[in-house]
This record gives sequence, structure tokens and C-alpha cells, in this order.
Amino acid sequence: MKFDDAGARSLLRHVFDAAVAAANPRVMLAKYLPEKPAGRCIVIGCGKSAASMAASLEAAWPDVNLTGVVVTRYEHAVPTQKIEVLQSSHPVPDANGEAAASRILQAVEHLSQDDLVIALISGGGSALMPLPAPGLTLADKQSVNRALLASGATIGEMNVVRKHLSAIKGGRLAAACAPARVVTLAISDVPGDDPAVIASGPTVVDPSTFADARDILTRYGIAITPAMERQLSHGVETPKPGELPHAEFRMIATPAMALAAAAEVARAHGVTPIILGDALEGESREAGILMAGIARSIRSHGQPVAAPALLLSGGETTVSIGKGPAGKGGRNTEFLLGLAVALSGDSGIYAVAGDTDGIDGTEDAAGAIVTPDTLARARKLGLDPRAVLAAHDSYSLFDAIGDLIRTGPTLTNVNDIRAILVA
Amino acid sequence: MKFDDAGARSLLRHVFDAAVAAANPRVMLAKYLPEKPAGRCIVIGCGKSAASMAASLEAAWPDVNLTGVVVTRYEHAVPTQKIEVLQSSHPVPDANGEAAASRILQAVEHLSQDDLVIALISGGGSALMPLPAPGLTLADKQSVNRALLASGATIGEMNVVRKHLSAIKGGRLAAACAPARVVTLAISDVPGDDPAVIASGPTVVDPSTFADARDILTRYGIAITPAMERQLSHGVETPKPGELPHAEFRMIATPAMALAAAAEVARAHGVTPIILGDALEGESREAGILMAGIARSIRSHGQPVAAPALLLSGGETTVSIGKGPAGKGGRNTEFLLGLAVALSGDSGIYAVAGDTDGIDGTEDAAGAIVTPDTLARARKLGLDPRAVLAAHDSYSLFDAIGDLIRTGPTLTNVNDIRAILVA
Repeated sequence: MKFDDAGARSLLRHVFDAAVAAANPRVMLAKYLPEKPAGRCIVIGCGKSAASMAASLEAAWPDVNLTGVVVTRYEHAVPTQKIEVLQSSHPVPDANGEAAASRILQAVEHLSQDDLVIALISGGGSALMPLPAPGLTLADKQSVNRALLASGATIGEMNVVRKHLSAIKGGRLAAACAPARVVTLAISDVPGDDPAVIASGPTVVDPSTFADARDILTRYGIAITPAMERQLSHGVETPKPGELPHAEFRMIATPAMALAAAAEVARAHGVTPIILGDALEGESREAGILMAGIARSIRSHGQPVAAPALLLSGGETTVSIGKGPAGKGGRNTEFLLGLAVALSGDSGIYAVAGDTDGIDGTEDAAGAIVTPDTLARARKLGLDPRAVLAAHDSYSLFDAIGDLIRTGPTLTNVNDIRAILVA
Repeated sequence: MKFDDAGARSLLRHVFDAAVAAANPRVMLAKYLPEKPAGRCIVIGCGKSAASMAASLEAAWPDVNLTGVVVTRYEHAVPTQKIEVLQSSHPVPDANGEAAASRILQAVEHLSQDDLVIALISGGGSALMPLPAPGLTLADKQSVNRALLASGATIGEMNVVRKHLSAIKGGRLAAACAPARVVTLAISDVPGDDPAVIASGPTVVDPSTFADARDILTRYGIAITPAMERQLSHGVETPKPGELPHAEFRMIATPAMALAAAAEVARAHGVTPIILGDALEGESREAGILMAGIARSIRSHGQPVAAPALLLSGGETTVSIGKGPAGKGGRNTEFLLGLAVALSGDSGIYAVAGDTDGIDGTEDAAGAIVTPDTLARARKLGLDPRAVLAAHDSYSLFDAIGDLIRTGPTLTNVNDIRAILVA
């Protein structure tokens, strides 16, 4: 084995921190900025990272007279000098979000070709910046949203309807900026990193049509109210491909970029990284069980790669709570406990998993670390790891043995990072 | 894409067949035979492949005067010329199994150093060849087995107890063959391919002791009857490491060998194989969801390898049936339907999964094939893939669209083979 316990822990913490740093706008945003404009520079934006991105932009361009306004989630604001930061509700939109959306549209009125709009877009932006199309209310949109969620419609179908009932989504915000140049800097937390999906793509063209939206509502038997009917028949279409020539989209952080940074740390320590994917899904504990098998294969057969190796993956797994009482735990600690139970103390296998936003579920930890003696240390404290897992109480177990990772909110999000070290 | 629909199907079927062939004793056994003996050649054996292995040995050594007896599962016999084939019950042992065990021990009495015993061992052998230690009955052993299963003891702990209450397990059969040379030819269906675990290792040394067995029974509060007490205090110990110098163990087929054969087929067709592991476990549908993410990563990021690629894995997943009624389906078809639903018709991704024994669960199919239009074809027949998955009725869906793979019983078993082609 190439690493002892302390060495393995240190490497894994380094790997996790490198992945989070790769998603930190303070580190990454400056690299993606365009040339400074001849005219004004207006900053707009929405998402859980909006304030952090705005502050990073101010730091990167101290000599530019930035103006504008962004909206982030309550408790996600950070101090800024020039760009105004508003706050609203996520995941259920509120009136503050609607007011913020109006303020943002006002900020891009009456611009010229010499002006530059920088749009700072990140996950959660859709709920934080809601603006119903003329004639519709936030309550109308919420009622359609509930019906869509209950209907079995796919996420793609829901977004077609949402963009056509909105005054700001689906490229409408970028359209409002014309003729100014628009450069969107985005952080992706969606599988596939589709620009049109992050925050419902307020600055990205939308190929779907009012007819598509109507078809979807009809297919799922969702009532079309008179106000909706007016919008579907006489509203303004979303900008179609080719119709936003002044707008440009730059991804500054994605799950894949964070995984690449983690892989780089492994390589620098003589460990072979293998990236399974940036958007893995499935039940958290089951992902842990499956990956235990892959880690054992690395050790016993040198497949899929020879040890020392780091098995990396991103994306969001899921914790399904049954009917029993559920304890404390996020998807990352549940993944890790599932992994540890399946490994059953196998020597030389270590792991870290955490949410890059610093909050694993609703708890005050980003994730945790697993070592070969995780189960033994828990049992010494009187804990039964299988029972803890069944009760979805993984946070409590890692808390008890002192192996939680606490970073505090990172104000960025490229989903989870899971790294299993076969030393 | 390197493959069209027909090409992808053909490659996947070829991959599956190559994996099964690599576990077929008719193909593999001859390569592992020792030199022919100066004296007699006695063949013994137990397991679901015992008859098939015996017939293969007769075919490989037509000029050797083979004698002996093997025991296989009911309906797993095949015709043999010289080696007698008995049948007994699996997974619950019966009196025919006990009689077979006695016959096998008799067959190796009074041998000389010039004689050769070939022991043919495969999965299921433990239940098929039960022989309680002197003074104990099959009912005694079954009662301890039930108590162990209910106790929370690990498989390893259960095996320690079983070997010490047996007259044939834990190397005792090889000890009985002395001074003749014993060559065991084995097919592994256990994670880790531990010779001591396959069929409870009748020809393999056992480091555990009567004291260990007593500790385990005490730890789990299992009553030690007077008959058990006599065996634990005055019985004959299992052979310890170094005590079976006349016995040799050769693995003729393992899950890893089957995966290697599948990988070879991929390479021959210009497809990069990646083997995730030979003993993956976890809930079948969840494994499908997770692997959908890996397949998508191959397509979108060229990670963990660039397309065209074949994502291979072995081992046994699990289907947990909830409280609702369960339809028809084995773990492989459930895995495949979970994969197909997660892929949601993604182009260029195909898959095969099946049990190498030819029987996926209790159904008359080995597995099935998934194509990008699996869901669409099922929907055309009025099936709702998500509802079918929720009802554990995956067999019926693949049957309806004509994509089951039917091989019939293969009389070998190296667990499941899963192969996902990213064309």
C-alpha cells in the first residue's frame, strides 16, 4: 500500500478541496471574462452563486465601473461594492423573486451596442427570478407547476411550458439586452451541462414553441385558463436559434471540471485517477454498494485500473426515505456508510464524498471520510452501522467518530464529488 | 457511431455467448488436467456443474479408466459413460444428498500414492453433499443453520460452524483421499473466488478451529446440544494449512475469466472494453441507473474511456420485492429495464445482461438485450416501462418486445455478465 491512514486521509481531503476550488468563482471567473467594453458594463444574474460570482467579478475588474443587480437565495448574499444583491426564495418562488426579476429587466433597458451585459447564472436561478408573462400571476404559474409535477411530464416538457409562460426565461432576458453584447458566465449543476437548462436558460435560445407548450398541457390533461390561453395565442415567442447573435455563453465551472481538478491531485501523488462520470444518479446506499465492488476489483484484479487508484464520480444520488422515522444524513454520508458496510473493513480502501456547495442535505457538513476502521470505531461507541444505515442516520455516525467534513457554505455548486482511494 | 442496430445486437450476443463459453467445462476443463496417473483415477465432485464437468472429463480423457461418483442438483444431470451421477436437493439438503456424500467418501477409501483423485467442485456443492459429523443428524445441522441465518452471523462465521459440524466439508474430503494425489478443478461463483468458500471447500485446508466455532455459537446465543458438544470437544479437527500436501486446487472458470473472454470479443471488433469488476452487488435497478450515468459519460466526455466502448461487469445484483404483487423477472432483466428507463432512449447505447447459468431468476430466459428503442417499442404495445419496473415485471416486457435471450440451462455458473455498448 502506497498510503498509510494519515496519508490517505490527507490525500482525500486535498482531492475534495481541489474539486470545490475548481467550482469557486473567486478562483475561476476571471479566466472567462471578455475584453472590457467601450461603453457601460451592466451585471445581472440569478442563482445560488449569484452574489459570490458578483463579488468575484468586482475583484477581477476593480477598475471597471460595474453597475447592475443580481438575485440569490436567502442567506446566500456576500458583501459587494458596486453590484446590488437581492435575495429571494428557493425552491418555491416568492414576491421578492418577482420584484428582483423586474429590477433585473429594468437594469438592461436602453442599452447601446457599446455596452456589455455580464449575466452570472447558476443553479436555482429559475425559482429565484420568476416573472410571469403579461396577464399571468405568480399564483397562475405555481398552479401550472404543481399540475406538471403531478402529471408525469419530463423535466424537458415542464421547461417548455415554463419558458412559454415566463417573461424572462428561455432567452427572453438576453433578448431584452439587445443591442448590447451579452456574455453569460455560468456554473452548471445539471446533468449534461445544457445551457438552456441551467436556471431555465434566461440568456439562451429556445427551439420550442407555443404549439409545443400547448401540446404538452393537452397531453397531460392540464387545464388551460383564459389568461394562459391569451399568452399561448398572442404572447411573444422565445428567441429561436440564430436570434440572439449578440449573446455568448461561457461555462466557468461544471462537475466535469471539478472532477478533472480532483484527478489532477491524484496524478500529482502518483495515484491513477479514473472518472466514472460527472452525472451519476441512483439510490445513495446502492451506489455505495456497487462502488465497493469496483474498488475491490481494482485491488484484486487491477481492473478497471491498477492500484494505487482513485475512483472519481460526480452527480447527485438520492436518498429514498421509507415509512420509518429518518435520522440525520445527506446523500453523501448515506453513500459513504453504504460503501463502508459493503467493504466491511477491507484494508487499503478509503473514501471521501461531499456536496461541493458545502451542505450535504440539510445538515451542517459537506460530507465525510471513510477509512478501513470506520465500522470498528463506530461499533466501539455502541453504534450498529447496519441499523444506522437503515435509519438513514449516517450523519450521526460520522459525527460520532469525528469524520465529518465541515467547510461551511461554499456559495457554489457543481453537485457531489465522490472519491474512493484504493491505496 | 461505429455500429448500427443490427451490428450492436450481434456484437452483444457474441459477447454474452463468449462469456458463457469461457465458463463451459466442455471448453475449459481439458486445459487444466494434470498428467495421467500411474495408478487409478477416481473422480468425485459436487455442485450444479458436477455432471457436466464429469462428462467433459470423460470426453477429454477417453483412454483413462475413470471411476467414481459425483452429485449434482435435480434436473442438472447429463449422460456419462463411466462416472456415476447422483442427484440431490438445493438449496435445502435432503437424504439423497447425505447418501451421495457417503458414496463419495467410500469412493476414495483405500487409495495408494499412485492413484489420482480429480475433484470436480462448483457452486451449490455444499447443500448437495451434506454429511453431518458422527453423532449428529441432518436435522441437527439444519436446525443450527436456521439459527445461524437468523442470528446476524456473517457468511464467514456460518461457514466456520458448518465445517466443524460436518464430516466432509473444510478439507475433510481431501484428507480422506490421502495418500492419493488430489487435483480439484473448480468453477467459482463466489465473490473473491476463495477456494475455501466454493462448496464449503471440501478439498481445501481450513485455518478455523473448534474453539472458533464454539465462540461463534456462544456469541450469537445459539444453543449447543449434547451431540454438538461431543463433536466440538472430541471430534476430528479440519485439516490445517500445510496438512493437505497431496491436494492441489485449480480454478477452471471464474467470473473474471468470463469477463476477460467478453473483453476479447470487444477488442476483436475495435471496441475498447472496460471491466468494472467481477463481483458487483447492489439492487439491480439501481445498478442500471448508475451504469446509465457511466455510459453517458463515455459518450459525452470519453470517460472513463472513449467510445466505442464496452462497459463490462460481473457478480450478482439483488431484486428486493416490496409489499406489492411482483410480476415476472430476474435480476438481469430488472437491471436492464432500470438501465433503459434511466437512459430514456439515448441514442447509441445498447446493453446485454444475463445469468451465465442460463436462468435469470426462476424464468426460462438467461437475460435480455436493450436497444435505444426498447422503451418506444414497449410503449407501442401499451406497456408503461416505469410501471412495469415498479411491478418487477421486467421479463414480461422483454418477452413482449421479443428481446429475451434464451439459452436453456448451461450447466455452469460464473454469475451474471452485464455489457453496455456505447457505440
